[in-house]
Amino acid sequence: MMELNEALYTTRAMRRMRPDPIPQEVEARILDAAIRAPSGGNSQQWRFVLVDDGQTKAQLGPWYRQHVAWAWDTIYRDRLDVARDDPDDPDNAALLRMQRSVSHLADNFEQTPLLMLPFVRSDVAGESIFPAVWSAMLAARADGVGSALTTLLNRSQDEVAQLLGVPPDRGWRLACCVAFGYPRGRWGLAVRRPAHEVAARNRWDEPLGYEIPEPLW
Amino acid sequence: MMELNEALYTTRAMRRMRPDPIPQEVEARILDAAIRAPSGGNSQQWRFVLVDDGQTKAQLGPWYRQHVAWAWDTIYRDRLDVARDDPDDPDNAALLRMQRSVSHLADNFEQTPLLMLPFVRSDVAGESIFPAVWSAMLAARADGVGSALTTLLNRSQDEVAQLLGVPPDRGWRLACCVAFGYPRGRWGLAVRRPAHEVAARNRWDEPLGYEIPEPLW
Repeated sequence: MMELNEALYTTRAMRRMRPDPIPQEVEARILDAAIRAPSGGNSQQWRFVLVDDGQTKAQLGPWYRQHVAWAWDTIYRDRLDVARDDPDDPDNAALLRMQRSVSHLADNFEQTPLLMLPFVRSDVAGESIFPAVWSAMLAARADGVGSALTTLLNRSQDEVAQLLGVPPDRGWRLACCVAFGYPRGRWGLAVRRPAHEVAARNRWDEPLGYEIPEPLW
Repeated sequence: MMELNEALYTTRAMRRMRPDPIPQEVEARILDAAIRAPSGGNSQQWRFVLVDDGQTKAQLGPWYRQHVAWAWDTIYRDRLDVARDDPDDPDNAALLRMQRSVSHLADNFEQTPLLMLPFVRSDVAGESIFPAVWSAMLAARADGVGSALTTLLNRSQDEVAQLLGVPPDRGWRLACCVAFGYPRGRWGLAVRRPAHEVAARNRWDEPLGYEIPEPLW
């Protein structure tokens, strides 16, 4: 039993995991929570492939490492250069911590106890799969299981589909990959820009009308 | 205070709402829960525009009704024809109930107490906004506030952006629209295909290895 807000506020990305397997009853709770989430028109055009087999993980691992390396070299390149020049700045320090954490997951990808690869059909914006994915991560949190969501494996969409034997003619698309495992780190509030800085009322440039300087949980 | 699983299992779409306004402290909890959700690289490239102004709702309403009519005529046309011919079949009855419920929201769109229009930047799959959107809906549930998510307004993406004064040159994209209000209906478990029918282990066509015939909450 866990209070909703504790889960919503403290389910931060956990990329350093112990190799202990996830018990079947915990896995079942994760899956059953996922399928309770909404999807457009309740269409449930989703499939959840769980991977706990060493051989399959050994195929996925190099792809993930390749795309992580790509991300550092492209999306994150300029910000990482800046961060390494001034690592004491809080934002830079956070970015460098994130890089170490992602690199740790990449280096140890094959030791991840459980991967979930959700596939979705005819879903443009992600509205019919990411509520389910987030429900799975929240349900895992209630059982003390950490998780980390990545879309980098989507760059090997076709190879992943072939590896898993996804039928090629039905429009199934890999939505993301979620790694699950008992965390080495601690649960806690992640740093966020406060809501009043990213919310507006009725017009883009109109203030919300109040401030939320501290977390409400 | 609400238990996590109660929220995950019973937050079904609520499209029949009372006109009562959402108190500011409830709205603040909804927003603050949203921004605690994960986003790719913790980038938080999101903005949440709340709409509670009658004039703005009066602009959005006709667009929503137009796209709802379009959806019945296109995406849902064949299934609705089948359903009207055999309305006693459980799947057909569910579809017709959904149509009535969406039509009710469309007809009464301007009376929705609060709309949330989340915008996102550089997010392809929706992984960096729909966890936040679902957290907002779950937090609302804990306060007894119902919600309904639609992506139909995205079809008027440009008109909505212009109406709200979204700067055109920064790549902001409307992710969806969430209607919030105190529900007339009851909370409860929605019908879903059981997890073992939509999950597989290691290969697309390999069974999960166990069944989950009844909800685990």
